Amino acid sequence: MLLVATVIGSGIMAERLAGGNDAVALLGNTAATGAVLYVLIALLGPISGAQFNPAVTLMLGARSRAAVIAVQILAAVAGTVLAHLMFGHAALEIGAKARTGPAIWLGEFVATFGLLLTIRLGLRYRAESVPALVAAWIVAGYWFTSSTSFANPAVTLARALTDSFAGIRMIDVPAFVLAQLAGAFAGYHVSGWLTAEEQRP
Amino acid sequence: MLLVATVIGSGIMAERLAGGNDAVALLGNTAATGAVLYVLIALLGPISGAQFNPAVTLMLGARSRAAVIAVQILAAVAGTVLAHLMFGHAALEIGAKARTGPAIWLGEFVATFGLLLTIRLGLRYRAESVPALVAAWIVAGYWFTSSTSFANPAVTLARALTDSFAGIRMIDVPAFVLAQLAGAFAGYHVSGWLTAEEQRP
Amino acid sequence: MLLVATVIGSGIMAERLAGGNDAVALLGNTAATGAVLYVLIALLGPISGAQFNPAVTLMLGARSRAAVIAVQILAAVAGTVLAHLMFGHAALEIGAKARTGPAIWLGEFVATFGLLLTIRLGLRYRAESVPALVAAWIVAGYWFTSSTSFANPAVTLARALTDSFAGIRMIDVPAFVLAQLAGAFAGYHVSGWLTAEEQRP
Amino acid sequence: MLLVATVIGSGIMAERLAGGNDAVALLGNTAATGAVLYVLIALLGPISGAQFNPAVTLMLGARSRAAVIAVQILAAVAGTVLAHLMFGHAALEIGAKARTGPAIWLGEFVATFGLLLTIRLGLRYRAESVPALVAAWIVAGYWFTSSTSFANPAVTLARALTDSFAGIRMIDVPAFVLAQLAGAFAGYHVSGWLTAEEQRP
Repeated sequence: MLLVATVIGSGIMAERLAGGNDAVALLGNTAATGAVLYVLIALLGPISGAQFNPAVTLMLGARSRAAVIAVQILAAVAGTVLAHLMFGHAALEIGAKARTGPAIWLGEFVATFGLLLTIRLGLRYRAESVPALVAAWIVAGYWFTSSTSFANPAVTLARALTDSFAGIRMIDVPAFVLAQLAGAFAGYHVSGWLTAEEQRP
Repeated sequence: MLLVATVIGSGIMAERLAGGNDAVALLGNTAATGAVLYVLIALLGPISGAQFNPAVTLMLGARSRAAVIAVQILAAVAGTVLAHLMFGHAALEIGAKARTGPAIWLGEFVATFGLLLTIRLGLRYRAESVPALVAAWIVAGYWFTSSTSFANPAVTLARALTDSFAGIRMIDVPAFVLAQLAGAFAGYHVSGWLTAEEQRP
Repeated sequence: MLLVATVIGSGIMAERLAGGNDAVALLGNTAATGAVLYVLIALLGPISGAQFNPAVTLMLGARSRAAVIAVQILAAVAGTVLAHLMFGHAALEIGAKARTGPAIWLGEFVATFGLLLTIRLGLRYRAESVPALVAAWIVAGYWFTSSTSFANPAVTLARALTDSFAGIRMIDVPAFVLAQLAGAFAGYHVSGWLTAEEQRP
Repeated sequence: MLLVATVIGSGIMAERLAGGNDAVALLGNTAATGAVLYVLIALLGPISGAQFNPAVTLMLGARSRAAVIAVQILAAVAGTVLAHLMFGHAALEIGAKARTGPAIWLGEFVATFGLLLTIRLGLRYRAESVPALVAAWIVAGYWFTSSTSFANPAVTLARALTDSFAGIRMIDVPAFVLAQLAGAFAGYHVSGWLTAEEQRP
């Protein structure tokens, strides 16, 4: 919930302040998202595993994945509501920003692929640094993927319910989620293969 | 004192340089505040517990809270004076920036709620990283809460004494402080409940 | 591949959004590159030594340097293709940005000199922090060297295949690479001398 | 040398790109300086103590302070030359930027005061983090002090030899240096008193 509130809230703030300069708006959006990811993963990791992402839960989750994913989606929507209330918007809106086409789907595939790689290799080689690593990956993804790295199906859905800088049309959500799941699947197996390689004598 | 001098000083600097682009001004303000919070908490933590925040002291403080809070308020006001003198302003001014309404109060509630969560869970799971975690939370809060995360009653009061980018009207202070105290209270109890949950067998 | 995709992808993104303000574009480019360097070195270091840079491999590499460098170049070109596909460009383009002259070559020499120093001294005194140190050096180099710190022959070649913010003319590549190799050579020997000095009784 | 080359080089780069938006220029300048300070202190600390600053050496240095300070000044001037050559300027110029008056001197006092506090308390409580702490203090100081935190007499002198964003008039240097020495003296003694307080039973 706080993650989505940050993504959308900082998007609204940035849009308000930046006066049409989208690059500056994205810098603010990036700083806020990176910082809050670091905090949330560091602190909720020990309690719940810090799973905010259905694509990650599907690949790495242990038990009752369906229930966890349902909670993730509800929390993400609650995050949208919270951001909207903080900025005096209606609780929910209709996303109007078109985000579609193969180039953007490839961006989303790469973003989620890299996320899984970061999490799996990070847990193996630098468990202590996973919060900083995931935050850094998403900071980079905001800028270098054409889709600005949603990389999270629950967040994607929640962003279809805001009509701000961070929004997306509901009709564009299914292809986004498919690209994310494909990226997560590929990232899971490539990271498994990388660590298996290393273990050979 | 240095914290408030940073918040207000970088606000003045940013306002001077940014030529009306508030998003760029907020980026500079954010960088300075995040950096100085990290330094002050890291270095004064071992000496005094690094309590700069009456809302935190009320919930977590041990002894002589009233005296500590009085010092916090005096130091915050001294920080305003210092920032003003460094930039050739009058020592104290009257804050003129209106910051009021339920949306902004909700922002302040969320900011202080998250701050308490960050401190309590941070002390429990990543004591070494608390300076970086608190700085990251406030960096995010500057951007994603509609109120730009004052999250500190002493700082709020001190900011009523400056007529710059970072200011607030004195008449808007009491509601801000109430929202902060409510957020701190909620954050304290939710973090207690989260860690209690985890301890169950 | 991901490194080059980040350098070029964030260059395209920044150029699109920044509306002609090159300083803001460079800030986004810097944030993305620094973040992804940190992630890639932290995670691939334990697997492959995280050697993405022919200049580094030539000086520090152990075995089969020619093969490693061939892979580095292929991966860099693949990164260009990936970035282009994500942003709907042609797979490869012709770099058109003139980057030549002694001032820029000196910039490239300094950037690669400092990179070797950072890696060798970092491995010796702060092995755990090498990912953050290298990322910080390149962040600084983006801003303080006149050439914006390519500091990597494979990346330089790959950037000759894009006609975006991050591009370079193919005709300017050889002198860039020579300056990088000279900087790497000097950095290797100066860092060796610095650590030898320290070991004397 | 590299420190001054970074401060001035990134100043020239930022000025060139930012098209008159000084706040954006200062953001780039800040990022580069913070990053390079972190790298240099982390890597040269174990070799030479990473003393780049006459004000620090005067208060904390052990042996042959005069020789160390002479080297610091020569290196700083060499850094100016390096930055100028990288950007195709004359080797040395005459600083033309007026930086004078009590408000700015107070800024410089505060910046150097905080620097000594950061170094002494950092060495005592978080020796491992001193590079990050010093970098963070200077990042904050760039934004919140009216003087943009030169905080270093050798750097101040070197900046009188450049006619760019980062310059200062030679006539303004003595008062700057006096303010820095006063701040260093005060910071040294306040940090001594803070740590002495803590040691009492």
